[in-house]
Amino acid sequence: MGLKPLGDRIVVRQIEAEDVTASGIVLPDTAQEKPLRGEVLAVGEGRWENGTRVPLDIVAGDEVIYSKYGGTEVSVDGDDLLILRESDVLAKAVK
Amino acid sequence: MGLKPLGDRIVVRQIEAEDVTASGIVLPDTAQEKPLRGEVLAVGEGRWENGTRVPLDIVAGDEVIYSKYGGTEVSVDGDDLLILRESDVLAKAVK
Amino acid sequence: MGLKPLGDRIVVRQIEAEDVTASGIVLPDTAQEKPLRGEVLAVGEGRWENGTRVPLDIVAGDEVIYSKYGGTEVSVDGDDLLILRESDVLAKAVK
Amino acid sequence: MGLKPLGDRIVVRQIEAEDVTASGIVLPDTAQEKPLRGEVLAVGEGRWENGTRVPLDIVAGDEVIYSKYGGTEVSVDGDDLLILRESDVLAKAVK
Amino acid sequence: MGLKPLGDRIVVRQIEAEDVTASGIVLPDTAQEKPLRGEVLAVGEGRWENGTRVPLDIVAGDEVIYSKYGGTEVSVDGDDLLILRESDVLAKAVK
Amino acid sequence: MGLKPLGDRIVVRQIEAEDVTASGIVLPDTAQEKPLRGEVLAVGEGRWENGTRVPLDIVAGDEVIYSKYGGTEVSVDGDDLLILRESDVLAKAVK
Amino acid sequence: MGLKPLGDRIVVRQIEAEDVTASGIVLPDTAQEKPLRGEVLAVGEGRWENGTRVPLDIVAGDEVIYSKYGGTEVSVDGDDLLILRESDVLAKAVK
Repeated sequence: MGLKPLGDRIVVRQIEAEDVTASGIVLPDTAQEKPLRGEVLAVGEGRWENGTRVPLDIVAGDEVIYSKYGGTEVSVDGDDLLILRESDVLAKAVK
Repeated sequence: MGLKPLGDRIVVRQIEAEDVTASGIVLPDTAQEKPLRGEVLAVGEGRWENGTRVPLDIVAGDEVIYSKYGGTEVSVDGDDLLILRESDVLAKAVK
Repeated sequence: MGLKPLGDRIVVRQIEAEDVTASGIVLPDTAQEKPLRGEVLAVGEGRWENGTRVPLDIVAGDEVIYSKYGGTEVSVDGDDLLILRESDVLAKAVK
Repeated sequence: MGLKPLGDRIVVRQIEAEDVTASGIVLPDTAQEKPLRGEVLAVGEGRWENGTRVPLDIVAGDEVIYSKYGGTEVSVDGDDLLILRESDVLAKAVK
Repeated sequence: MGLKPLGDRIVVRQIEAEDVTASGIVLPDTAQEKPLRGEVLAVGEGRWENGTRVPLDIVAGDEVIYSKYGGTEVSVDGDDLLILRESDVLAKAVK
Repeated sequence: MGLKPLGDRIVVRQIEAEDVTASGIVLPDTAQEKPLRGEVLAVGEGRWENGTRVPLDIVAGDEVIYSKYGGTEVSVDGDDLLILRESDVLAKAVK
Repeated sequence: MGLKPLGDRIVVRQIEAEDVTASGIVLPDTAQEKPLRGEVLAVGEGRWENGTRVPLDIVAGDEVIYSKYGGTEVSVDGDDLLILRESDVLAKAVK
């Protein structure tokens, strides 16, 4: 993929709600602030804080649950992707 | 459980109001900002502050009182859970 | 009591307005933002700031004047208590 | 007096507008955000900032000009007092 | 004068708009957020930041241009004065 | 080009939506907060944080995806350009 | 000129839109948040941050593009000037 996110941003491809993955995670329709699931395709180098970078706790390949709020849609070579900040990610699936 | 919360987040399974636990804690219906009780299932590694992680004061297995405000509902293998920040937790039961 | 407050929080049992204590403190009904009196039952370990905990200036047993704003009511073994942040405490009685 | 203010708070007894003190300070009725004069009865130990306390520039006995905004009224042994933050104090009288 | 301002505050006596001073500064009536001119009578010791005081760039005797927003009027021995923060001062006259 | 952006700002020339570049990135019309593509012409030295400059992760010549929010249009020698902050840039194309 | 700006402020004389300078910069009327051009006449010593001053990236004589938002008009010896913060300056002309 041709995208390198900046700072504490990541690039995610959404996993459809009906798709069952090995993690067993399902996101209910009744949730107030509806979260989404996705696969991480690329991560930034981390934001700067007082002269050092804050490392990300996410790597490419992770399955994550995230809040869509604040994300930006983009299409690369026909692939629909989302650019998020790491702080929009609530949890990741344990493999 | 297949969920690893990020940063200062925790995963909680709510304890129903009528359930009595060894802690003796009951949450009155008349409370203004109604708190909830839950069992902690997983905790994050802590958020970064100036190059070090801030450790969490909560571990898996704790019984906690929390404010639901800001939490996100998620279902893992048919189990209804809540992802919160540690700052949403007011107190824990002393064992 | 079975509650351990987190961070800079404390647990307080309210002293009724008509109760006179050795401190001689009375809180007038005419006060704009009406403060309350209480006895401190438990205190947290302090919040983290840049790698160290900020110690609390309050210990269990203190009589304190506090603003109820932000506190959360909870009942433990039939005892009605309030969980506050230390910043909601204005002053303590000198013994 | 039986009150010890917490952090950067102070306890003040208001000086009535018509009272003339040695400082010669008078507060006009026409002032937009009307300030008040008072005598400082007790001061806190200072708030914590990055592991050290910030000392107060006010001591008991000072005559101060303050903005009432944010203060809380309290009565101790029949004495009407006000609990303020040091940041609510604009200036002190030079003796 | 009998007033010592606290922290980063200063005491100013306003110079009337029609008064011409050696600085040649005039403040137009058409200015959006109308600034004022004044003579500095007293300055504070500076606010605390991480264990040190931030020194003021203004000394008593300076002629300054300031935004009245946030200032508080006070009268000392019949003299109408204004207490401001240093951040309300835009510039000083070069002598 | 005759413009040097200040601090963490950059100067960008927008790439039209229909233009296909080697990166393969396309931005859909249906995106909520519609992002834009551009070529970076100049970058600032970085903003100051506690005595050091925060270096930019972008250099002149990069193809970037940015949010137009907060940008300012300017024309230099007939060339229509945009001045942005680095934080408005979401990602860059990997070459 | 008789004005010394305080902290991170600068004094600017606006260049009229129709005036062409060596920099070739023109500011279009159609810009959303219309920027302005000006010549810098004086700069402050920089604001304090944790015990050191943050140096300004602008010197007297620079041609700058700035956002008028937040600036204050002042007249010195019949000269109409503007006092801005450095953060209101977007870029400077390269000589």
